[in-house]
Amino acid sequence: MVLKNFIVLEGLDGAGTTTQAKLLHERHALQGIRAVLTQEPTSQPIGLAIRKILRKETPALPETLAYLFAADRNEHLHGPGGIRDLSAQGCRVISDRYLFSSLAYQSVGCGWDLVRELNRRFPLPEILIYLDIQPREGEKRLQSRQQREIFEFEDFQTKAAAGYGRVLREYAASAMRILSIDATRPPQAIHEEIWEFVKAGEVK
Amino acid sequence: MVLKNFIVLEGLDGAGTTTQAKLLHERHALQGIRAVLTQEPTSQPIGLAIRKILRKETPALPETLAYLFAADRNEHLHGPGGIRDLSAQGCRVISDRYLFSSLAYQSVGCGWDLVRELNRRFPLPEILIYLDIQPREGEKRLQSRQQREIFEFEDFQTKAAAGYGRVLREYAASAMRILSIDATRPPQAIHEEIWEFVKAGEVK
Repeated sequence: MVLKNFIVLEGLDGAGTTTQAKLLHERHALQGIRAVLTQEPTSQPIGLAIRKILRKETPALPETLAYLFAADRNEHLHGPGGIRDLSAQGCRVISDRYLFSSLAYQSVGCGWDLVRELNRRFPLPEILIYLDIQPREGEKRLQSRQQREIFEFEDFQTKAAAGYGRVLREYAASAMRILSIDATRPPQAIHEEIWEFVKAGEVK
Repeated sequence: MVLKNFIVLEGLDGAGTTTQAKLLHERHALQGIRAVLTQEPTSQPIGLAIRKILRKETPALPETLAYLFAADRNEHLHGPGGIRDLSAQGCRVISDRYLFSSLAYQSVGCGWDLVRELNRRFPLPEILIYLDIQPREGEKRLQSRQQREIFEFEDFQTKAAAGYGRVLREYAASAMRILSIDATRPPQAIHEEIWEFVKAGEVK
């Protein structure tokens, strides 16, 4: 099942999902099209609990994190004022990450099958935009932002990249429109390509 | 799969699971048998978040609560110093509620299948003790404790009772030892019967 008006941006850390989600949201505003920008983990209580775990402030097992992401996603989708409501009102929803991040990242720690199972009840977006970047390139971009264990980081991102590869293969025949785009190009050029792709799907 | 040394007490609200779990824990101490008393939701961060939802301080959909209980249970079981570790060390673990509460209660709001699916990876306890009480009787016992919407309460408990009935049928042929006991009798008499049942399963 595909949720109309729902657009998701995905990619490795450093791929620029947040930048492109913002540019896409602004472009909608400029064009007078109603759109909401959102992200996962959310800024609701469960999303904030997840962020604490990701920052290693609270310990949690990989499987626990997968369950929590499903809980946060359920509210994000089906809670009052959530994605499903907005989509039904004809409002476009642009989400910086969604269940494909769970498949790519959480499955590194707890396997593909559990994550797939926990997410199989959630609807697919109308459009999935994958910002394609090599793990090493993403790492370079992030080095300026914060201190990291470089090898650990690259090893994990390489596994997550394999997860995204599997996502793109497994959902290739789904009802989603998918754009995989070279994310090493300048942000504005990437944005224009995304905007053309989104417009191409609109009913004339 | 059954987890050795793991004992679970279940029942409707007012059935006395907390009282009996305490009595059983104390009896182990008196007999010099190492035992740990625990409960669900836990007192860890996810368990505390669940309690807030149950007290209606944080809103959440029934499905979200089912995912959260699974997250809390995963830590309870597999986290450091959790049930699996204790069981492996030969320590007895007595839990006031476990996945059967999710099946009985959460399934009222979001259906049996999702709750079953979210919990099917968790091991069963060696012993399940069900404190059997009528919904109306449980309600009477709780009236002294706090203000409640009586009809709403009884309606919900009646559905949860049906859920427990299904638990007892579906797990009757499992590897768990199950004791279903009339919980309207005096607490000490109930405790003695539970203790005899626990002892009967010990290797001589």
